[in-house]
Amino acid sequence: MTQKNRTEISELGEFALIDRLNSRFSPQQPSTLKAAGDDAAVIALDDDNALLVSADTLFEGVDFDLTYFPLKHLGYKAVTVGVSDILAMNALPQQILISLGVSAKLPVEALDDLYEGIRTACTELGVDLAGGDTSASFTGLTIGITAIGRAPKNQITYRSGAKLHDLICITGNLGAAYMGLHLLEREKRVLKDIQNPQPQFEGHEYLLQKYLKPRARKDVVESLAEEKLLPTAMTDISDGLASDLMQICKASCCGARIYLERIPIARQTHEMAEELHNDPVVAALNGGEDHELLFTVPLALRDKIADIGGIDIIGHITEPERGAALITPDGSEIKLKAQGFKE
Amino acid sequence: MTQKNRTEISELGEFALIDRLNSRFSPQQPSTLKAAGDDAAVIALDDDNALLVSADTLFEGVDFDLTYFPLKHLGYKAVTVGVSDILAMNALPQQILISLGVSAKLPVEALDDLYEGIRTACTELGVDLAGGDTSASFTGLTIGITAIGRAPKNQITYRSGAKLHDLICITGNLGAAYMGLHLLEREKRVLKDIQNPQPQFEGHEYLLQKYLKPRARKDVVESLAEEKLLPTAMTDISDGLASDLMQICKASCCGARIYLERIPIARQTHEMAEELHNDPVVAALNGGEDHELLFTVPLALRDKIADIGGIDIIGHITEPERGAALITPDGSEIKLKAQGFKE
Repeated sequence: MTQKNRTEISELGEFALIDRLNSRFSPQQPSTLKAAGDDAAVIALDDDNALLVSADTLFEGVDFDLTYFPLKHLGYKAVTVGVSDILAMNALPQQILISLGVSAKLPVEALDDLYEGIRTACTELGVDLAGGDTSASFTGLTIGITAIGRAPKNQITYRSGAKLHDLICITGNLGAAYMGLHLLEREKRVLKDIQNPQPQFEGHEYLLQKYLKPRARKDVVESLAEEKLLPTAMTDISDGLASDLMQICKASCCGARIYLERIPIARQTHEMAEELHNDPVVAALNGGEDHELLFTVPLALRDKIADIGGIDIIGHITEPERGAALITPDGSEIKLKAQGFKE
Repeated sequence: MTQKNRTEISELGEFALIDRLNSRFSPQQPSTLKAAGDDAAVIALDDDNALLVSADTLFEGVDFDLTYFPLKHLGYKAVTVGVSDILAMNALPQQILISLGVSAKLPVEALDDLYEGIRTACTELGVDLAGGDTSASFTGLTIGITAIGRAPKNQITYRSGAKLHDLICITGNLGAAYMGLHLLEREKRVLKDIQNPQPQFEGHEYLLQKYLKPRARKDVVESLAEEKLLPTAMTDISDGLASDLMQICKASCCGARIYLERIPIARQTHEMAEELHNDPVVAALNGGEDHELLFTVPLALRDKIADIGGIDIIGHITEPERGAALITPDGSEIKLKAQGFKE
C-alpha cells in the first residue's frame, strides 16, 4: 500500500492555501466580475453598477475570548469586520446577514447583548440586517458575517490597480488594536485565580476601544467620493500592514517602499508597547485587526490627500523586482513578510 | 445585588430566538426588499429584478461527523445547502462564497477533497465560487456558505403568499436523508472498536446519497418557469416537513391539512425504517435535510403540476384558526409541531 501524502496546512501557509483551493475554479456566470482574490466578490448589476459581497467568520477562542470580550462590543466588531471588506473596495455597505452558531452555555440575554451591538453598528453605518441563520454549536460561539454593498463599476477599487510611483496611504493609526489585545491578555493572566478581579485599564481606553469596538472607516470612503479622489488600489488592514501591503503588491505585480518613521502609531500604542516590552512597529506591521484602509493614489494627488486629513502617506510603489520593504531612518531596507493565520 | 435574568436558549426554542433577535431591526435601505424571515434576503437591483442572498453555516459535530462523512461529499452538500435557500425563493443561484474555519488536524489534501466536491456541485449547477475566507479554528471544521441568486421581482416566491384552498406540493420524497444518517450512525456505533471496519451499506446506497450528497432541486425551479407556473409560497425542506410547512403557515397567516398517505416516502426509506424500528412518517415529518422544495399553488393548477412529474400534492391550505395538521387514513387529525435545533 502506498503512503498517502499528507501536507500540513502550516507548511503551506494561509495565503498559499487559499490560492491552491481557489485555483481550480473559473467563473462561468457573466455576472461574476471578480471572484476570489480580493476583499469582496464583485457581481454585475447592470451596465454601470455592481454589487459587492464578502463573507467572514469569527470563532470563539481564535478571534475573540469571551472572558473579557463584552458581547455588545463583539456584535459591533462583527459588523465592522464584515463591512470593512466592502469599504475596502471603495464601496458603501448596505446590508449584512448574520449566521450564528451558539452553544447552550450562552443564555438568551447574552445573544440580546450581541444583537444590541450589531444594531448599534448597523444604525451608525446605515446598514440593514437582512437575515441569516442561527444554529446550535457544540464548540462555542461562531459568528458568520455576509456583507453586501453597491458601487458604480468605475469607482470599485481592486487590490490589483497600483501603478509604479503611486503613493501608499493609510488611514488612522496602526498597532493600537494589537496593543489592546495584549493588555487584555495580560490582565486575564494576572487576575486568573483572583475572586472579583479588578483589571487595570485606566488610561488605556483608547487601545481597548480599537480592539474591542473598532469603527469601520465609512467616513474615508465618503470623503474620497466627495473629493472625487479615486484610489488605484485598496484593501483594509485586517492581517497587519505587512501582509495587506503584500497582497496589493502581489495583485498589482509591483514592489513597495514604506518608511518606518511615517507609519502612524498612536501615543497610547507607544506607551503600552514600552510597558509590555513590545515593539510598536511590529504591532503596526503584523498586529492586524486595525480595520483601517490601505490604498494607493497617483503621485499627482498628494495635495488632495493632505486636504482630506487623517490620512498618512507612508511610501510609494516600486518595480516588482524590488519587492516590498520597510526603510528604517538610517536608510536600511527590511524585507516585509506576510503573516497568515497560525496553527 | 439583583440576580440577572438568565433564559436558556432551549426554553425559548430556535424559531422564537431568531424572531426575538431580529425583532429590534427595521430596514432603512430602500434596496432591502425582504430582510429576516424567509429563506434568503431580497435586495432590489432595478425596477424589475432582485438579488437573493442567503447565509448558512455547517458545524463539525453538529451538522456532520467526519468519521463517516467523506470530504468530497461534504463539499458537495455544503453547496446544496446554500443554493437550496435561493431555489426556495423560486430563483436561480449564480454565485457562492465559502468561509472556512479549519483546524490543524486536517491536512491540505483533505481540503483539496472538500473543494473538489464544491467544484463538482458548482459545475452541475452552473454556479461560480466567487470568494470567501479561510481561517484557523480550534474547534473542528466549520463551513460558511453565502449563496447569491437573481430573479425577476414578480417571480420571487416568499413563504408568505399561500392563500386559502391552495394546494400543498412537495418534490421528490422525504425522510431518506434522515434514514441515511441513522444508518451511518448505527454502523459507527457497531464498528467503534473494530480494526479495519467493514460497514454494511449494500442496498442502502440511495439513502446514503440522499444524506451525504443531496442534489439541489434547480431542475424543479427551471420546470416551474418553463411551464409558467408561479407558486404562491415556497420554502425548502431543511428542518423537516412539519417545521417548514409551519413556517409557511406562520408567514402566510393560514392553516394547513396534509394527508399521511400522500406524503412521498421512498421504498428504501420504508425498508430501513423497519430494520431500525423507526417510523418512516416521523422521519419524513421531522427528519429534515431532504433539501426538497415545499410550495403552494392555486387549486386551478392541479393538472399543470401533475404534468411536470415528480411532484406530489399532499394537502391544502386552510383557515388560520384550524392550525397545521396531519390527517391519518382513518381521518384523525394530528397537530403538527415545529422542531428547532436541540441543545
